[in-house]
Amino acid sequence: MDLPAIKIMEQYAREHPEVISLSQGIPASASDPRIRLSVMSALLSNKVDKYSEPQGMLEFREKISDQLMGDGMKYSSSEVIVTVGAIEAMTVSLMALLKPGDEVIIPTPTYSAFFRSAKVAGLNVTEFPLNEEGPWSLDISLLEDQISKRTKAILLCHPNNPTGSTLTQEKFESLGQLAIEHNLIIFLDEVYRNMFYGEAALYNPCTNSAFKNYIVRIVSFSKDFSLTGWRVGFLHSSQQIIDEILPVHDTVVNCAPVISQYAALSALENAESIFLSNKELYHKNRQLMGERLLQLSDYLSFTWPQGSYFFFPKFKKMTDSRSFCLDLVKKAGIAAVPGSDFGTGGEGHIRLCFGREKESITEGMNRLENYFKENL
Amino acid sequence: MDLPAIKIMEQYAREHPEVISLSQGIPASASDPRIRLSVMSALLSNKVDKYSEPQGMLEFREKISDQLMGDGMKYSSSEVIVTVGAIEAMTVSLMALLKPGDEVIIPTPTYSAFFRSAKVAGLNVTEFPLNEEGPWSLDISLLEDQISKRTKAILLCHPNNPTGSTLTQEKFESLGQLAIEHNLIIFLDEVYRNMFYGEAALYNPCTNSAFKNYIVRIVSFSKDFSLTGWRVGFLHSSQQIIDEILPVHDTVVNCAPVISQYAALSALENAESIFLSNKELYHKNRQLMGERLLQLSDYLSFTWPQGSYFFFPKFKKMTDSRSFCLDLVKKAGIAAVPGSDFGTGGEGHIRLCFGREKESITEGMNRLENYFKENL
Repeated sequence: MDLPAIKIMEQYAREHPEVISLSQGIPASASDPRIRLSVMSALLSNKVDKYSEPQGMLEFREKISDQLMGDGMKYSSSEVIVTVGAIEAMTVSLMALLKPGDEVIIPTPTYSAFFRSAKVAGLNVTEFPLNEEGPWSLDISLLEDQISKRTKAILLCHPNNPTGSTLTQEKFESLGQLAIEHNLIIFLDEVYRNMFYGEAALYNPCTNSAFKNYIVRIVSFSKDFSLTGWRVGFLHSSQQIIDEILPVHDTVVNCAPVISQYAALSALENAESIFLSNKELYHKNRQLMGERLLQLSDYLSFTWPQGSYFFFPKFKKMTDSRSFCLDLVKKAGIAAVPGSDFGTGGEGHIRLCFGREKESITEGMNRLENYFKENL
Repeated sequence: MDLPAIKIMEQYAREHPEVISLSQGIPASASDPRIRLSVMSALLSNKVDKYSEPQGMLEFREKISDQLMGDGMKYSSSEVIVTVGAIEAMTVSLMALLKPGDEVIIPTPTYSAFFRSAKVAGLNVTEFPLNEEGPWSLDISLLEDQISKRTKAILLCHPNNPTGSTLTQEKFESLGQLAIEHNLIIFLDEVYRNMFYGEAALYNPCTNSAFKNYIVRIVSFSKDFSLTGWRVGFLHSSQQIIDEILPVHDTVVNCAPVISQYAALSALENAESIFLSNKELYHKNRQLMGERLLQLSDYLSFTWPQGSYFFFPKFKKMTDSRSFCLDLVKKAGIAAVPGSDFGTGGEGHIRLCFGREKESITEGMNRLENYFKENL
């Protein structure tokens, strides 16, 4: 197994400080000072040296449960596992709930780590392409045609990374019914849920208790709270599913880092004001990058993302996105992620992250524009 | 898969504050203030919010490499992976280097998580009993008889948890030759290496470069530096092996928590003085617990541990250590780990940790003594 292109791009960017990275989904802003203050207080009170329960600190899980309840999802603190970020939640859940050789369907393009998690868990992957003209919509009846006896799960990134598309309540209800009929688990990665630019609220299928035994929902603190390096997230599901995942989580990491659990607890306590300021920032950045991309319509086309902090433009003359991105970072000094990393339907695109400083976005787009003028 | 007895005991102890826990291997002392000061400085300089490289911060890996070199082990910073504690190092390495259905030999009694790691990786386990009369010695030629074509690895905890036994240079040289001849990997968990009570220095097989392709050595910061909750450790091996483990590590956790990497970096920088004070403490505690156990010779027998912070006494009239420990915690208020948790040869024993405060050890031993007088 090789490292994905995104890691190669990030490594290159690290070694070349002049490169502007619009590749990895890391928020540019620092974590909220209140979070760091709260961490210091936990540190000074000697609360962070010892293991927590494998499932996560009770105080923290209760706070998570309260927040879920407030959003209409009925999950108790015992139906939550605190994890080492979303990636541990996904990989460990797949390992715990599925068997090597089981088949999973992954709508694509999608977060590339899904393929790697499935591979590590020994699963067979069927890619199911989203309809780009939709834009990037999920056709549930075509999806149903792909289900075989060996299909055990669907891995869904929502809002979708890299396309920024989201699902309506109607789609989610159909998908939930499909899961019940075919006894499938939906692994629902909602890392970008709070980056949403639509008018009406984004529907959440975990508010429907009929789906509780069929959904493992995964949440991270990395993106919303600029805590990528802290490695903390959580998953929630029915008690029966939690009881199957917990021993595997315990065997892989024992528990999430305790100091990071305190950071995330403080993040939840201050979520409202942090989300408000993020919302304003990401709306502005989306507008900024989108308008610059519009000016490049000779070279590319794109749809505006409904969620996440990514644009996923399609380039008119590009057939090998990996070579293109390598050339782009070397010649123009911008790191982007090749669309081929995201599976079927991704080729021909690149992913650009607007969760960065305004100056980086502007300078990155200047460089992209110059690159086109000089090279295409 | 169920949670192991040790977690059930710890959970009981957490819910009953009057219980004295001599079960889980958690040092009683807080982490060194210099470590916490260094963490605060990293926190205030905004260094901890973003992912590090999957392999771990270069600055930290260079420090680890320096320390290994100083101990006669030639491993560069690229031959090190920083992990989410020793358990992630073990589980992920097994997943990366072996295939489901492969066989591993585990000398027992041993750290119970080994069985769980092997199970999660889909491996078949052959337990190979240590010779209790040795005390707890490893017979290499008998071990060789157990090797089949499907045997791919040996999982070794050294110094041994729970027995405290260690291997001589001669044994390690034979074991290394065995690995070369049969193309096996030795997963060498040396979490308790710095808790050693022998006269001469403890031999380290990683100082012999002939074994480099055959050993994955695992080190934790949890026990030596009272950092169990921080979830940080590392592994080192040959470049070829590291290149196989790294993508799986990346897929399971992305990287170790960055703030914990700073804590561990500071721990290494202050290791000499911390080890010195630990050494004094553990020598005293070992003496204290050992002398109390000697007074209970009507009920039990034991050997003095050469390493680790555990005693593993054998009880004359006990046949079911799990029931015994449950009865002990309920009636006498002491949590200990049943020997059956540690595999073949463990039944009939219990594990007692002396990495606790002097008062806890004394009161724990008082309670054990009273329990015997009243119940046996």
